Amino acid sequence: MQKRCDEDGVFVVEGPKMAAEAMKSGFAVRAVCATTEWMETYSPTPGLECYEVSPAELERLSNFKTPNQVWMLVERGDNSSFPTPHSSLVLALDRIQDPGNMGTMMRTADWYGIRHIVCSTDTVSCYNPKVVQASMGAVFRTRVEYVDLPQWLSDCGMPVFGASLQGNPIGEAQRPDGTAVLLIGNESRGISPEAMARVTHPVLIPNIGGTAESLNASVAAGILIDRLWTNN
Amino acid sequence: MQKRCDEDGVFVVEGPKMAAEAMKSGFAVRAVCATTEWMETYSPTPGLECYEVSPAELERLSNFKTPNQVWMLVERGDNSSFPTPHSSLVLALDRIQDPGNMGTMMRTADWYGIRHIVCSTDTVSCYNPKVVQASMGAVFRTRVEYVDLPQWLSDCGMPVFGASLQGNPIGEAQRPDGTAVLLIGNESRGISPEAMARVTHPVLIPNIGGTAESLNASVAAGILIDRLWTNN
Repeated sequence: MQKRCDEDGVFVVEGPKMAAEAMKSGFAVRAVCATTEWMETYSPTPGLECYEVSPAELERLSNFKTPNQVWMLVERGDNSSFPTPHSSLVLALDRIQDPGNMGTMMRTADWYGIRHIVCSTDTVSCYNPKVVQASMGAVFRTRVEYVDLPQWLSDCGMPVFGASLQGNPIGEAQRPDGTAVLLIGNESRGISPEAMARVTHPVLIPNIGGTAESLNASVAAGILIDRLWTNN
Repeated sequence: MQKRCDEDGVFVVEGPKMAAEAMKSGFAVRAVCATTEWMETYSPTPGLECYEVSPAELERLSNFKTPNQVWMLVERGDNSSFPTPHSSLVLALDRIQDPGNMGTMMRTADWYGIRHIVCSTDTVSCYNPKVVQASMGAVFRTRVEYVDLPQWLSDCGMPVFGASLQGNPIGEAQRPDGTAVLLIGNESRGISPEAMARVTHPVLIPNIGGTAESLNASVAAGILIDRLWTNN
């Protein structure tokens, strides 16, 4: 289903909360399948292709174990036409595989006003149903591009902060004074050597406990965004 | 399976990485079911109850879609007998429901040297297979207690930091100068009114973007731990 939707230029949005985000987003909703409960609570826009389905039918459509009232097909639009981000940070993701991590990083970026995310081509799609869900609406507000990441990092002309075991402790790291990039690597393999070669500011979140092997990628991203891009 | 294991005082650990953590943890391993691949790589301790299983058998045992070589039953032991935590922070969790969030918060606590977690009785079990997995070994190093949380917070005699929309921006918040508690609330409902009444230091992670409704609970916990319990 996901693949077919990708080819169609649409993606799936599920549950009343995300459906409400989709409807107010300005993205075009192509079709809705929903239970009576949802239909009675929301008034779908006139002209919208809308099907009432049974809970069993919804379960067959859904990507989740516990489907939640509504399943929606939304047109991708061209998120590269989003207005130039006003934030001074670009988040760069290298080979992120876990949809929960991807969506959670989009959500954190959204909270901090980061509107531009650049991903290596082998990063999970931002339209993956689990990414969409975990993003909590950020998918409707964020420009996400898939690029040759080492090349992009070489060409971007901005300082690149990246987590590295050889980095400076984050508390001692110089803060960016203009636009900058924060690079986050794969959950188990970290940043690829090709991308790491473009990191100008390696940083480290000190392992105070000394027992854990690593932090979750989306938690590390949250801590680094917070440390580097807030003034106090 | 999980329920039965709970009653038996054992929990399930899966995959070579977590199995290695279990074997070096000092926790008693009661039984192992593993594929030839795992058996050939690791030499199970003599006397350990060890069964070689086919990939299909492992799939039936496993709590995951993609089982990974080994399934292990580990005795819980009494984690309340863990040495008194040397860290000056206690993490308190109010009604956390998502196993991924719970395990991720245990992992972050482990990274920051926080050895004591206190949970409301309706927080997900730290022995839930998905929690164990997401904790990345922290389950073997952390004292996790389930208590009447509002009562515990009243009796603990420590300042209690908790995220609240009426809180002080975290950058302006006073840092604890001795032992303290950080309270994290439920993923969608936040901190319960009963527990919130015990918060002495309400804090807020400023919503810089102004569009996202909230942060993921485990990301928020990571940012607050980092801000409150590190010196730079």
